[in-house]
Amino acid sequence: MTLRILVLFFLMMSSYTFSQKRIRDYGIAIGVLKTGKFNAITDVAGVKVGQVSVVKGESVRTGITAILPHSGNIFQSKVPAAIHIGNGFGKLVGYSQVKELGNIETPIILTNTLSVPVASEALIEYTLNLPRNENVRSVNSVVGETNDGWLNDIRGMHIKKEHVLEAIKEAKEGPVIEGNVGAGTGTICFGYKGGIGTSSRLLPKSLGGYTVGVLVQSNFGGVLEINGVPIAKEFKKYPYRDKILNDADGSCMIVVMTDAPLDARNLERLAKRAIMGLAKTGGIASNGSGDYVIAVSTAENNRLPYETRSMFNLVKLLRNDEKSPLFLATIEATEEAILNSLFAAETMIGRDGHKIEALPLNEVIPLMEKYNKIGQE
Amino acid sequence: MTLRILVLFFLMMSSYTFSQKRIRDYGIAIGVLKTGKFNAITDVAGVKVGQVSVVKGESVRTGITAILPHSGNIFQSKVPAAIHIGNGFGKLVGYSQVKELGNIETPIILTNTLSVPVASEALIEYTLNLPRNENVRSVNSVVGETNDGWLNDIRGMHIKKEHVLEAIKEAKEGPVIEGNVGAGTGTICFGYKGGIGTSSRLLPKSLGGYTVGVLVQSNFGGVLEINGVPIAKEFKKYPYRDKILNDADGSCMIVVMTDAPLDARNLERLAKRAIMGLAKTGGIASNGSGDYVIAVSTAENNRLPYETRSMFNLVKLLRNDEKSPLFLATIEATEEAILNSLFAAETMIGRDGHKIEALPLNEVIPLMEKYNKIGQE
Amino acid sequence: MTLRILVLFFLMMSSYTFSQKRIRDYGIAIGVLKTGKFNAITDVAGVKVGQVSVVKGESVRTGITAILPHSGNIFQSKVPAAIHIGNGFGKLVGYSQVKELGNIETPIILTNTLSVPVASEALIEYTLNLPRNENVRSVNSVVGETNDGWLNDIRGMHIKKEHVLEAIKEAKEGPVIEGNVGAGTGTICFGYKGGIGTSSRLLPKSLGGYTVGVLVQSNFGGVLEINGVPIAKEFKKYPYRDKILNDADGSCMIVVMTDAPLDARNLERLAKRAIMGLAKTGGIASNGSGDYVIAVSTAENNRLPYETRSMFNLVKLLRNDEKSPLFLATIEATEEAILNSLFAAETMIGRDGHKIEALPLNEVIPLMEKYNKIGQE
Amino acid sequence: MTLRILVLFFLMMSSYTFSQKRIRDYGIAIGVLKTGKFNAITDVAGVKVGQVSVVKGESVRTGITAILPHSGNIFQSKVPAAIHIGNGFGKLVGYSQVKELGNIETPIILTNTLSVPVASEALIEYTLNLPRNENVRSVNSVVGETNDGWLNDIRGMHIKKEHVLEAIKEAKEGPVIEGNVGAGTGTICFGYKGGIGTSSRLLPKSLGGYTVGVLVQSNFGGVLEINGVPIAKEFKKYPYRDKILNDADGSCMIVVMTDAPLDARNLERLAKRAIMGLAKTGGIASNGSGDYVIAVSTAENNRLPYETRSMFNLVKLLRNDEKSPLFLATIEATEEAILNSLFAAETMIGRDGHKIEALPLNEVIPLMEKYNKIGQE
Repeated sequence: MTLRILVLFFLMMSSYTFSQKRIRDYGIAIGVLKTGKFNAITDVAGVKVGQVSVVKGESVRTGITAILPHSGNIFQSKVPAAIHIGNGFGKLVGYSQVKELGNIETPIILTNTLSVPVASEALIEYTLNLPRNENVRSVNSVVGETNDGWLNDIRGMHIKKEHVLEAIKEAKEGPVIEGNVGAGTGTICFGYKGGIGTSSRLLPKSLGGYTVGVLVQSNFGGVLEINGVPIAKEFKKYPYRDKILNDADGSCMIVVMTDAPLDARNLERLAKRAIMGLAKTGGIASNGSGDYVIAVSTAENNRLPYETRSMFNLVKLLRNDEKSPLFLATIEATEEAILNSLFAAETMIGRDGHKIEALPLNEVIPLMEKYNKIGQE
Repeated sequence: MTLRILVLFFLMMSSYTFSQKRIRDYGIAIGVLKTGKFNAITDVAGVKVGQVSVVKGESVRTGITAILPHSGNIFQSKVPAAIHIGNGFGKLVGYSQVKELGNIETPIILTNTLSVPVASEALIEYTLNLPRNENVRSVNSVVGETNDGWLNDIRGMHIKKEHVLEAIKEAKEGPVIEGNVGAGTGTICFGYKGGIGTSSRLLPKSLGGYTVGVLVQSNFGGVLEINGVPIAKEFKKYPYRDKILNDADGSCMIVVMTDAPLDARNLERLAKRAIMGLAKTGGIASNGSGDYVIAVSTAENNRLPYETRSMFNLVKLLRNDEKSPLFLATIEATEEAILNSLFAAETMIGRDGHKIEALPLNEVIPLMEKYNKIGQE
Repeated sequence: MTLRILVLFFLMMSSYTFSQKRIRDYGIAIGVLKTGKFNAITDVAGVKVGQVSVVKGESVRTGITAILPHSGNIFQSKVPAAIHIGNGFGKLVGYSQVKELGNIETPIILTNTLSVPVASEALIEYTLNLPRNENVRSVNSVVGETNDGWLNDIRGMHIKKEHVLEAIKEAKEGPVIEGNVGAGTGTICFGYKGGIGTSSRLLPKSLGGYTVGVLVQSNFGGVLEINGVPIAKEFKKYPYRDKILNDADGSCMIVVMTDAPLDARNLERLAKRAIMGLAKTGGIASNGSGDYVIAVSTAENNRLPYETRSMFNLVKLLRNDEKSPLFLATIEATEEAILNSLFAAETMIGRDGHKIEALPLNEVIPLMEKYNKIGQE
Repeated sequence: MTLRILVLFFLMMSSYTFSQKRIRDYGIAIGVLKTGKFNAITDVAGVKVGQVSVVKGESVRTGITAILPHSGNIFQSKVPAAIHIGNGFGKLVGYSQVKELGNIETPIILTNTLSVPVASEALIEYTLNLPRNENVRSVNSVVGETNDGWLNDIRGMHIKKEHVLEAIKEAKEGPVIEGNVGAGTGTICFGYKGGIGTSSRLLPKSLGGYTVGVLVQSNFGGVLEINGVPIAKEFKKYPYRDKILNDADGSCMIVVMTDAPLDARNLERLAKRAIMGLAKTGGIASNGSGDYVIAVSTAENNRLPYETRSMFNLVKLLRNDEKSPLFLATIEATEEAILNSLFAAETMIGRDGHKIEALPLNEVIPLMEKYNKIGQE
């Protein structure tokens, strides 16, 4: 039975996660700002992440990652949000309503390209069935994706509604599993095994004391750099170098959460900076990339009630002038989240015997040393 | 059995269509340009429309309308396209990839709000299963919707994949059924029964001789005017007039096809003009409206092959300076398509006994006469 | 001396204005909502308009129209704003900063196409020289334009900085002169003399009691309709009808002011509706049109101070759900403002003896009667 | 006399340029692709650059940089173009018409923030006075800027029309002077003296053999990295580190030229990648940044004639699928152009005795060695 295998796998994932090493564990520090407690998107108070990996037989390597901005009924208590399209070769759903109304009303689901409809349907069903939503007849689901079709039998449509509902149900605060998990189960990044990665930044009190958390589903290409070290160049492994490696395609879904009180306009500005973080890893947002950034403000006072007697929202918004530190935080956390996804992901064999190696840390760490990037504070 | 009822209904619709009267049949002419042969989106050569109405018991009033830009494998032979968001309170899928790449690779499906995912999934399945698409692992489905939840048990999710596949399969050239059919089965427009409507314009040879065809799924509100006659004002029936009528919400999906050789940038400009046509009927693109325009160029030489050995597309594009007549054609055809949807739609009773009256032609026609708008050429 | 001629002309304009008739004076009512006291953009409390007409000899027919959202130092007390591009064949300056920051920090200036730079420079000079702005080194001027080059020797660059400063200085509340005045001095609309026009709508208390005021500089083409009456069709005078009349080009600048508390996102939505009002006059936003809408909220509590010790703005914003009546108001006021510009403008002879006739009211009014549109409430 | 001083200065600049060292001269190679012959925007055939520095007394430190896509009458032979807004706190003019029509019709001028109007006026005058343009009455000038107000008496408005016309006249092919020259005379970048910088990339024949050239006016902040070496971190000099250094503001104008046959849609995609190159230097596109990218295709066959008897453009366009190498080229050339601007700029004292130091190469080069980045190929 699907669900049983899945739960087993989930437990397995959970157990081995404690041995996962992250880039900071190697003495490699990205940027200049401090991280939050878990160095994860869940450092933003109230944010939860749930993941279901769907791994079956020799060719199913996919899954679901759900990100919840708060624990309540999101439809009844919407959150300000924006979506930035870095490169739009992708199938994200929910864009136009977020753009028009400036908010999100469901959990955010990440999955594979061809499973967007089933995830969208699951979000609708989930929302319709929540208490107080008995008369709801319109739901704007937000689902992002990348294409795991090299390792995963994507045409087989192995994601089912229950996987999505399970991911939402299991979502929790605290540490987030990275690498081959959830929507990152079958993804590829810079030619290595990619996956889910996360990171956060905490601004000093003098700059507002806000947290920015980022979670990525890394599945893209380019010329890999790790904290400025030219890994791809050293390995002579990058697109366009020769006929074998002429593909930089692939996508990156990026979710940014912050407790800073921002409206949709300023969240869109924040979202644009995430692509700058992606750039620092050597990503090029290639033609075939679906690079999207979903940015959400969780600030409690600025939530948008669905039902209210007031004609107004009274909101406390951070001024334009105070945004720049949040931009820097977003750039840094995105870069580190992508690198964490690479450090956590493990070698995987999938569809048709396709094998994607993990980032060879035994070769990478010496390069980091060669370029004097280990042990820098 | 669903499918049998459906086919029966379909036949029934087909038979009574010949008695449908359109606005021009009353001697009311919209605009100054000539119409095409059928005064329908299918006047653009090669364009096909397929519709499946899903009507069951007392509360299912919904359906599918499929529009095909050509009869071939659209994934293998993509068409230049653009989507304009008039007001984005809607769940259209496919936006960002069309924006990024400037083309469409599936049929266009219209349906109800909560059935977008199943329609999207059906389009993916349809595309994956076409000959030559055996290795396709990424499909950008384009699905639009309006909310028929007043007459239809929308929460019941009565649209199934086979309805979508059936609509695509049944798509054909020639006259298009209007009113309570396909995706327009349960829609409401200006407080009256809305539905599917279509119209076209044919430019004179001196202006290029191109055809512009429009199809709408009308489900929106405002202050109805018919060819400049203030119907809503005369009937004292419009939003904000009193407490009963304080809702102008609802949406309009608009599909524009043309054989003029336009690229995505100029198709987006064309798409924007469709909202100007909507405005002339008294629509206001209210807060809760999902008003989207999908514009496609069917010009055969500008199709974009999926597989090719060339690095280039050789295209013949109409110059910017030659666009204005196409803009006028789009405005006129959109206005007339919306009015045709109102003239064709019939009174319907649906969910919870909700009843929506057809536009009362017996009262409207005298008003058209009062304002001297009958028999104008 | 330029300035003397100008002042004389200004006085002349001022005196004859009292005889100007507006469309409502003929018993023609646009839409269903009530107008404000002056039926002008100045019905929005605090808004001021200043106009300088520059008319010299046989070929100078141009001018400046300045719109001030409030009487204070706008740079120090910025106002939320958005700009919508209906069709971007135009030279408006200020767009990107308004888009990014969501506010305006100077008066809005309208003028002719080639005089945008001098107007922009004048706005900078004006702003730098205001008290409290001694250290300001960056100013985002907002200047719109249409092309009056048929009647005006536009290549002669006859607008000078002092004209702009004069228009700002002379700006006042109360009635606004329409027709051949200020930036509308030499403009053409639907083949007739266009110019400045204005109108307003006042929402009932139950819908918030807000005012929306619109001012236009009409210089565009299409197939003229007046309150639904097909004037162009009756006169057989419209683009593409024959070789002589094959040009619909030209532009329309539209300024929308409201005291409703809206942020930039919702102001952009309001701005989009103004193009729907333009559509109802028969405008088609032709290829060569620069159709821009600048929308501003004057709500006092939501002003954005340049200097402040707070990191926050505390704002009271109208909810998305409450926007639709404002959309309707914007559509109606824009339509009426354009028509007012046509009703007020008088026949003009300009550059190279070019003559543009005023809208022939003696023929138009009978047509309005023929279509039963006189005396409708 | 202004012009004489200027010409003297210009000659002076020209002479000392031959001693300017660029980042590659130190054995530091950015990226993996080859550069063009001059490693400059002028490697794109036909592109010319002209610069005029305006330096007078103790407080005037500003200038003009003109970039010409080809040597002909650009108004008569327009070039496909797009403008991307990285962060829109800036005063660039020309945006909306480029967006709407997809082309540029004047040289591109860069200057200081408050001199945009005079530069725009000069471009109009230049265009009106070209042979064949006798009847032109509408010109869309494209002018970008950054704010040099710390070193330059920007409020004094020292740029005159003749400076702009001189820059256009003097424009030439071949090497481009970098650093404190033209529009970069008074700019600041990462707290050091910034200025003009340029670089190019040449794709291998197998990828089309196209050239991408970039020119920047660097005036922005962030956390400086040079080819991945954390300069700012090592120097403990970056925004938000302490109260003295809390400002990351400033802007970057980026001009991208390519001979690849791209239309406006794909040029906009190219333009977006330039911001990814900026990100790699540590730029954060702060709140107060005006980061704009103007991208132009010079491909001769795709030029857009102003006067033509044809209704069509016959164009040969690179397919979407072939774009990614150009994206990589743009990212690399932008990063290197910014670094070149820093390497070339020299310490400057300006307004009120403000002094901005050049990047201290004597400290930077050892750091590059510490991180093993010297002599990498």
